[in-house]
Amino acid sequence: MSASLRAAAGAMRAVVVREFGGPEVLKVEEVAVPQAQGKQVLIKVSAVGVNPVETYIRSGTHNIKPPLPWTPGNDAAGVVEEVGKEATKFKKGDRVFTKSTVTGAYAEYTVAEEDAAFRLTDRLSFQQGAAAGTPYMTAYRALFHRTHGKPGETVLVHGASGGVGLAAVQLAKARGMVVMGTAGSSEGMELVRKNGASHVFNHREEGYTDKIMAATAGVGVDLIIEMLANVNLEKDLELLARHGRVGVVGNRGPTEINARAAMTKETSIIGVMLYHMDAKELGETMSALYAGFTQGTLNPVVGKEYSLEQTPQAHKDIIETKSAMGKVVITI
Amino acid sequence: MSASLRAAAGAMRAVVVREFGGPEVLKVEEVAVPQAQGKQVLIKVSAVGVNPVETYIRSGTHNIKPPLPWTPGNDAAGVVEEVGKEATKFKKGDRVFTKSTVTGAYAEYTVAEEDAAFRLTDRLSFQQGAAAGTPYMTAYRALFHRTHGKPGETVLVHGASGGVGLAAVQLAKARGMVVMGTAGSSEGMELVRKNGASHVFNHREEGYTDKIMAATAGVGVDLIIEMLANVNLEKDLELLARHGRVGVVGNRGPTEINARAAMTKETSIIGVMLYHMDAKELGETMSALYAGFTQGTLNPVVGKEYSLEQTPQAHKDIIETKSAMGKVVITI
Repeated sequence: MSASLRAAAGAMRAVVVREFGGPEVLKVEEVAVPQAQGKQVLIKVSAVGVNPVETYIRSGTHNIKPPLPWTPGNDAAGVVEEVGKEATKFKKGDRVFTKSTVTGAYAEYTVAEEDAAFRLTDRLSFQQGAAAGTPYMTAYRALFHRTHGKPGETVLVHGASGGVGLAAVQLAKARGMVVMGTAGSSEGMELVRKNGASHVFNHREEGYTDKIMAATAGVGVDLIIEMLANVNLEKDLELLARHGRVGVVGNRGPTEINARAAMTKETSIIGVMLYHMDAKELGETMSALYAGFTQGTLNPVVGKEYSLEQTPQAHKDIIETKSAMGKVVITI
Repeated sequence: MSASLRAAAGAMRAVVVREFGGPEVLKVEEVAVPQAQGKQVLIKVSAVGVNPVETYIRSGTHNIKPPLPWTPGNDAAGVVEEVGKEATKFKKGDRVFTKSTVTGAYAEYTVAEEDAAFRLTDRLSFQQGAAAGTPYMTAYRALFHRTHGKPGETVLVHGASGGVGLAAVQLAKARGMVVMGTAGSSEGMELVRKNGASHVFNHREEGYTDKIMAATAGVGVDLIIEMLANVNLEKDLELLARHGRVGVVGNRGPTEINARAAMTKETSIIGVMLYHMDAKELGETMSALYAGFTQGTLNPVVGKEYSLEQTPQAHKDIIETKSAMGKVVITI
């Protein structure tokens, strides 16, 4: 039965988690198509962005623990199917992407608050739309709200070939920063270079941090956007210039640092979590992103695509991959 | 021979370090009284502030390594004896304190650039003047330039009974912040309370951090001014409220943290080093301090006093003391 036939019958396929655990708990079920209430919109989903945080929540060890059964996913892209009675921002047929949903994005249809949905410019595909929310908002928050990056500053995107990394490279380049990036493979390095980094390094290569210092003539970098703090934070403090800042976007365990390194050059370690973005910051962020998406400076890079049934594999791959290559997407 | 007789003969007593090493390398010698050149002033020293950084430099392991022989000390208080030909800021007889010197403060006379010397208000003693420079400037930089403390915010001064700690307590209180402090003894706690902290905790007591959380109704503190990051940094990340900041003023070794704690509440770890204060920030800082010193909101607390000959003991005590009690001062 096709998606539209199922919808006509009021049913859809969705990933439903009934217990926290490994990727195998991500099961596709047939469930009722949700309805848009009040200021909500119902979206017919074409593509879904998979983010690492969804794997942490799925495992049950994250500090966010949604009630079960739970359909994961914040980032859906598709077409508005229906709007709630008080909704005014969109009409049926509008192309949109979301930053969060009410009913979960890993599904054929999803309901979102209209304020959590944004117009998807014609020049981007639905797959790109699925990579436009969380990754770009996170990168924007890290670069501008939290570490206060400025044009002319040098930024190292430490882990640049994934969804957030490539978004950070493009955003920093568009803002007039000097962008350096790292990746774990030559394909990843090429991708990072193609997206605007003027210097690219392989973070699996012995002594690559010496090359970064050499590229800055020994001065160090002003900013680091860090995807794996538990591995890199101590090195990062050495790589920073005076008054440099590390924005910590990703971390998977404890790490040893010497706080004297932060004192000596008056540097800062700054936590980043999109969850804390307030309404005013959201308005600023989405205006900046819309400008970039429509004017062509921001181009989400779609990596490996999965079907809804392949979601468990997508969750495995996003955590275990040794070298990310763009955004992991579920195509419906 | 008295100091003035020695001066008439062009000689003075000063601590002279001829090799880096333990406190025993701090030897008193008879040397020539230095002369004020250009925009410098010669100060007849009455009291000298001893700072931990001078013990680090003396040991030879610090990244600042002055040429030998070296007379330590940045913080002298005394009376202007003579001014250089181009100096215009002071005249002979003015009471002053310094934030740095050209020839070293651990001496009967010292030469400083006039821009590194500041009028000592009549309501402060010379001993208090010796506690007015580095400690208050460091506390000001930590609270306002680096962690951007605001009236109404809650600040925990982690190690509050020493020179910088008490300065931070007074500065934060004067700015309208809610001040909490820790000390390692009941006498230290009483001193911290007397200087303006509304909540005081004993950081040697098991479970004292639970009491701090309870005092904030579980919300955590907005700011921490941290004197011993290697011991406290991991705890600090738990004690911070959302968007809280730790200003690291002191640290003596490596430490383990989990950067996820910084992500979850979007908190920051911020290095502080007075050395990096620029001319504009210095002007702001000294204006703020002068207001507090003259208007009575800032009152340097003098702790143990030593003679010039007892300098080695002062260096031992400032590092080994289990519970600081105000500023360590050499009285000439």
